[in-house]
Amino acid sequence: MSKRKKIFLSEKEIPKQWYNIAADLPGTINPPLGPDGNPIGPEALAPVFPMNLIEQEVSTERWIDIPEKVLDMLSIWRPAPLVRAYALEEALGTPAKIYYKNESVSPAGSHKPNTAVAQAYYNKEFGIKNLTTETGAGQWGSALSFATSLLGLTCKVFMVRVSFDQKPYRKMMMEAWGGECYPSPSDLTQAGRDVLAKYPDTPGSLGIAISEAVEAAVTDESGETRYSLGSVLNHVMLHQTIIGLEAKKQLELIGEKLPDVVIACAGGGSNFAGLAFPFMRDKINGAQMEIIPVEPASCPTLTKAPFAYDHGDLAKMTPLLAMNSLGHGFIPPPIHAGGLRYHGMSPLVSHAVKEGLATPEAIHQLECYEAGLLFSRTEGIIPAPETTHAIASTIRQAKQAKEEGKEKVILFNFSGHGLMDLVGYDKFLKGELKNHELSAEDYEEFTAVLKNHPSPII
Amino acid sequence: MSKRKKIFLSEKEIPKQWYNIAADLPGTINPPLGPDGNPIGPEALAPVFPMNLIEQEVSTERWIDIPEKVLDMLSIWRPAPLVRAYALEEALGTPAKIYYKNESVSPAGSHKPNTAVAQAYYNKEFGIKNLTTETGAGQWGSALSFATSLLGLTCKVFMVRVSFDQKPYRKMMMEAWGGECYPSPSDLTQAGRDVLAKYPDTPGSLGIAISEAVEAAVTDESGETRYSLGSVLNHVMLHQTIIGLEAKKQLELIGEKLPDVVIACAGGGSNFAGLAFPFMRDKINGAQMEIIPVEPASCPTLTKAPFAYDHGDLAKMTPLLAMNSLGHGFIPPPIHAGGLRYHGMSPLVSHAVKEGLATPEAIHQLECYEAGLLFSRTEGIIPAPETTHAIASTIRQAKQAKEEGKEKVILFNFSGHGLMDLVGYDKFLKGELKNHELSAEDYEEFTAVLKNHPSPII
Repeated sequence: MSKRKKIFLSEKEIPKQWYNIAADLPGTINPPLGPDGNPIGPEALAPVFPMNLIEQEVSTERWIDIPEKVLDMLSIWRPAPLVRAYALEEALGTPAKIYYKNESVSPAGSHKPNTAVAQAYYNKEFGIKNLTTETGAGQWGSALSFATSLLGLTCKVFMVRVSFDQKPYRKMMMEAWGGECYPSPSDLTQAGRDVLAKYPDTPGSLGIAISEAVEAAVTDESGETRYSLGSVLNHVMLHQTIIGLEAKKQLELIGEKLPDVVIACAGGGSNFAGLAFPFMRDKINGAQMEIIPVEPASCPTLTKAPFAYDHGDLAKMTPLLAMNSLGHGFIPPPIHAGGLRYHGMSPLVSHAVKEGLATPEAIHQLECYEAGLLFSRTEGIIPAPETTHAIASTIRQAKQAKEEGKEKVILFNFSGHGLMDLVGYDKFLKGELKNHELSAEDYEEFTAVLKNHPSPII
Repeated sequence: MSKRKKIFLSEKEIPKQWYNIAADLPGTINPPLGPDGNPIGPEALAPVFPMNLIEQEVSTERWIDIPEKVLDMLSIWRPAPLVRAYALEEALGTPAKIYYKNESVSPAGSHKPNTAVAQAYYNKEFGIKNLTTETGAGQWGSALSFATSLLGLTCKVFMVRVSFDQKPYRKMMMEAWGGECYPSPSDLTQAGRDVLAKYPDTPGSLGIAISEAVEAAVTDESGETRYSLGSVLNHVMLHQTIIGLEAKKQLELIGEKLPDVVIACAGGGSNFAGLAFPFMRDKINGAQMEIIPVEPASCPTLTKAPFAYDHGDLAKMTPLLAMNSLGHGFIPPPIHAGGLRYHGMSPLVSHAVKEGLATPEAIHQLECYEAGLLFSRTEGIIPAPETTHAIASTIRQAKQAKEEGKEKVILFNFSGHGLMDLVGYDKFLKGELKNHELSAEDYEEFTAVLKNHPSPII
């Protein structure tokens, strides 16, 4: 038998607590602000989220117990394997050791179910019977439908119309799990009807879809409906830390040192935070480590956008969050990594970058697809377009290690497989894709809104 | 932590030998016959397959070593987990213990890569540089493209035109792994051109696609091209036995007895043989066990068709094989379990059924889709349409165990996930699917060809 590739943990080794980095981050974390510019209290979020999740959102406890029932659902696919990418290393001729955490093994094919099962659980515990959410490319809507099906909640997903039309399989996936999926804007909400009246042929946007999902939750008079978000918020980052906590155990199990480089793609920030935060704790405590969130060069939130107060959605229904933002009106170019086309970024991730704990990188999509194909044809698994960003960055690091003759340990998050997103590969192979550069004019125009918001802008 | 669901083996516990049931089957196995009605020798197959695979095809050795390099490729996703389906058991209120072997964890999403990596390896060892094959729904073409990409062989796939048009993602998947995929009939072969000249608008068939793939292999003058088949043949069954061998180890590991019932769907027979043959050895040696291959009621090869000599393809390019066959001209109804729409059946599986070692069952597709949805919403994984047949049979067994108050151990093969085949679920949920009954007239008409062939017909 040749070299061991996969490091498995047994089910009883699944971490029993999530790690809350708010307990350890240096500096003062800027709180969310209400419309009056003052910090909002937990009760302001009560119509939108159940109080047990709001408590997690504002918690500064370092460790938070994972409920038994959540562990039970997680164990459908967790612990996820940690894999040594021998074939990729060989193809690159690098002395670096490359490990990846394979989050594509979940039934929905990505890391998203890690928080979906937790959110569905806490909502059910709080007496909630119905969840609403939005989805762009469909990963999150699928994950939440999966989670609600296990617990017997209903799930209503507003899917950006252009994706709804282009990706019919995602809707079918949600329906197989009992979810309902509607193209947004829809006639189910006032927000949707208003947009349709003005722009009957609109392709929709994540901003509109969020407005619809929030409205559908807060206007339900039964009081048994809440809204659920798949990234950005603190409790979502918290639930995803199981990724990095497992990875640490797995590296320890094989006697491997802490990685020299930790890499994950970043859209709203949750798969990055999930892998990186448990390692960032070591960095805060003095370990030498490079931690790299990778974003599309066409949507350079962490690498170019200011750290500012901004809304999470176009319709300004969310509180103001302190985060890197390209402006809530930012219209991302049509790259295929739909999960990375977001104007903002998790406040915790933004804060960590501001404090110098992570060094973001932006990569164009052609380099990413090339990396994705090399990975497919060596390691055998076709990555999601989002995941190819982490792979491209890993390949850069591995090549640098080769030049420097260093045996670096690189760990990246294989956040999802690409079986539902093959159109991007098809276009890349046909030479139909190009890189998208954010022009200085567009940057100025979109970020202008930030000047209307309270400080900090840095 | 609640009840343990998944039983993992470590990579070093992957079985090191395949099990060849030809060494143990009772009765005389009828050999393949050539056009003259006489048994063919290995050399007759040499233009089509490399000699090392032909040797496996005719071997009666009980155990055959798995080469290091094949183990290395298998370890990308193997050992596959054995899973206890607690949530399904609970939903059914059954005293039965239900286990499933999860073969959907391979990069191509099914059990097919188990033989794809072995076949690609042996071809490469023999000096072959290019493989050709056909694919119906696309599972096999994807699996072989995956395997050839790992070894640097080229792969040319002839895909039945109607599937090629309806399932564009499958072609993209093959291409991401570097495979080439052509709609069949194509203008690349004489067989294809002949059909196109007569029927320019034909939707194609597996029979035509096989003819094209075989022709493309045998007419390549370089001598470096061979043909590869994803089911039916003895060496394919052999490679798949790793499924059952792993499952036996996993049951032993948790101190579970031999299953009372072993269930798998059967089209060409390979996922059934893969799980069942290692257990069938125990049955041959006296163990009490029910072994059930499950087929669609609309394509009842094992439950209704005679055991006869017939060709594997419409164009009669293959030798005559002794198997259950509905006649090589059988036109299967348009059910969504594309992998089960085959007129014939593995000769080894057919022989085992004839000897009373397995008791086949036929189930209609509406019952199967219902079973697939129950599984999706309890166990969380959406099954392939083929796999739903095994689940439906498992549910029947579990309900019977409830009636009888028996704590039966049921093991079934979760042969693949349904993420690339969601259209069937969509149609089922919309009420657009129906069951297809094979009429007595059609049965008579299709099986009439068998009377022209040599015995045995029983």
